Amino acid sequence: MSKSYTIAVIPGDGIGKEVTPWAQAALEKAAEGEASFTYEQFDLGAERYLRDGAILPEDEENRIKATDAILLGAVGDPRIKAGILERGLLLKLRFDLDQYVNLRPSKLYKGVTSPLANPGDIDFVVVREGTEGLYCGAGGAVRRDTPNEVATEVSINTAYGVERVVRYAFQLAMKRRKHVTLVHKKNVLINAGDMWQRIVDRVGEEFPEVTHDYSHIDAATIYLVSDPSRFDVILTDNLFGDILTDEAGAVVGGVGYSASGCINASNEFPSMFEPIHGSAPDIAGKGIANPTAAILSAAMLLRHLGFDAAAAKIDAAVEADIEELGSTTRTTEQVGKDILARI
Amino acid sequence: MSKSYTIAVIPGDGIGKEVTPWAQAALEKAAEGEASFTYEQFDLGAERYLRDGAILPEDEENRIKATDAILLGAVGDPRIKAGILERGLLLKLRFDLDQYVNLRPSKLYKGVTSPLANPGDIDFVVVREGTEGLYCGAGGAVRRDTPNEVATEVSINTAYGVERVVRYAFQLAMKRRKHVTLVHKKNVLINAGDMWQRIVDRVGEEFPEVTHDYSHIDAATIYLVSDPSRFDVILTDNLFGDILTDEAGAVVGGVGYSASGCINASNEFPSMFEPIHGSAPDIAGKGIANPTAAILSAAMLLRHLGFDAAAAKIDAAVEADIEELGSTTRTTEQVGKDILARI
Ligand SMILES: CC(C)[C@H](C(=O)O)[C@@H](O)C(=O)O
Ligand SMILES: CC(C)[C@H](C(=O)O)[C@@H](O)C(=O)O
Repeated sequence: MSKSYTIAVIPGDGIGKEVTPWAQAALEKAAEGEASFTYEQFDLGAERYLRDGAILPEDEENRIKATDAILLGAVGDPRIKAGILERGLLLKLRFDLDQYVNLRPSKLYKGVTSPLANPGDIDFVVVREGTEGLYCGAGGAVRRDTPNEVATEVSINTAYGVERVVRYAFQLAMKRRKHVTLVHKKNVLINAGDMWQRIVDRVGEEFPEVTHDYSHIDAATIYLVSDPSRFDVILTDNLFGDILTDEAGAVVGGVGYSASGCINASNEFPSMFEPIHGSAPDIAGKGIANPTAAILSAAMLLRHLGFDAAAAKIDAAVEADIEELGSTTRTTEQVGKDILARI
Repeated sequence: MSKSYTIAVIPGDGIGKEVTPWAQAALEKAAEGEASFTYEQFDLGAERYLRDGAILPEDEENRIKATDAILLGAVGDPRIKAGILERGLLLKLRFDLDQYVNLRPSKLYKGVTSPLANPGDIDFVVVREGTEGLYCGAGGAVRRDTPNEVATEVSINTAYGVERVVRYAFQLAMKRRKHVTLVHKKNVLINAGDMWQRIVDRVGEEFPEVTHDYSHIDAATIYLVSDPSRFDVILTDNLFGDILTDEAGAVVGGVGYSASGCINASNEFPSMFEPIHGSAPDIAGKGIANPTAAILSAAMLLRHLGFDAAAAKIDAAVEADIEELGSTTRTTEQVGKDILARI
């Protein structure tokens, strides 16, 4: 008997619209017989905003909240001032749906050329806090556009918010190589950094098999280039996680292979799965965007719903596809079909 | 007739003490006949702190303020809680001496192996704001060590502080390849990011020959790995500059070749020159630390005092040394002597 789920699909802008159908197709095929999906399409993103000024209307958000999970393509358009869609749509969903774990695996697949001369074995996961820190929007400005302007940005960090993501990271490490690296800047951000470190130390005691260490964010950006294999689970805050995962994406051969889950691990609200790449207006409409990251985000969605075997099928198909054909030039459709054929 | 200057020397901890004498020796030799230096040694850093609890006594800071420039080695020791020396000594000097330009060149020297497979020509400078942003120390915590703890960090940005460093970056670009890239995260940090962008746009109009563009911090960490030659002058805030310059150091083959100037460009207070690397307790005392970055910081000091030709002598000596001997294993003393012989 197959379980049924409702998935909110937000293809968004640019290549987001081109890769998302392949994520849906992969979902279908991998879960065949085990789960069936009904899709609710949401027309949100730059085009919608330019058409009627709507970013995330309340009734649409409520319908999204009622689904079991969300597949997102990419959001963004150079015609729109920075911050409007990010804060109004993407971050609003992450915050309103309390998606406190932003999970971002980085793996160097066989067949992908890393920009590093000696990359070694790269296989780590970044557990990025998703609902606090500098992303709260708690800033302001006075005397805007005068020589006396002052602009602030406030990073808000709570023990409640930090502890839950720290515990998630240690639990994840138990299923992996049992090592957690906290990344922060506690020698400068002494209030937030000290709290993160204390909570890691305390929660770490519940996981005696997991070792943990600490790296400043600046040093971590060095290690990602000089010795990325040292990492298993990287645990960090919202902003540092944003920075590290993009660098990590580059190191494993491009964000085209990196998927991401915005997870509400308590399941009060649906979690959201998306490729790390953006809407890429420069290549949009040409049918050449790589759907691999989007397809991998479908695997994350399946794993989140409890279909580990189905998720593993997608992961294996992607892995095999990249190993054999990763260096060839293919259209979106070709890559999509090639991967589907292996699922 | 030779001008005379007083230099405050703060060797600090670990390898800081081993490399700083070579910076002084390079200074002497390169400026011979043009400038003479009197040194005031300051015993500041971890060892002093562990001995008598002093971090930066007021009278010593006043004596430092009265010098013409500062040579700093490195500060830090794992026995001391993160933040104490950083905030009490290094950042206190940067802030009290209003060193608003943190200048950090990154250059891939011939003879150095970059961790990148195809690094290309790398030669850019990061102009990092040094007296504002998240480094202000404007954070706090309530209900510390309870489940209800809240910790904040506040980024304070002023038009006054931003404009002066923006202008510096454009002036510097005029002497280079005439391109400035603002790095920020204006799609999330909308108050500070918007102010930075407006000021860059406005000041940019005064420099019609200089082109400028913008990159989010996350994308910039990708470019540093995938296409670092695109950059000429990177202009950014205090925290993003910290992160980018460490990654940049890694990309050009290690922070051992990267020097840094904390510059008060209005010359009300002395500027401070230091290698980017830390005190490296793991190799301290072995006589194997590379003094190249410290020697390059002496060149930056000379350039700051107006001795461009003397500074160029050091730069050329370092460049020739690395090209010929960069791949050999040498002691601190050998590298120091080899470079000195070429000045
Ligand atoms: C688009 C932007 C708001 C977002 C972020 O900063 O989180 C993106 O960079 C990401 O990493 O998902
Ligand atoms: C030691 C630390 C406070 C410092 C900084 O963050 O600025 C260092 O990382 C640097 O880059 O000079």
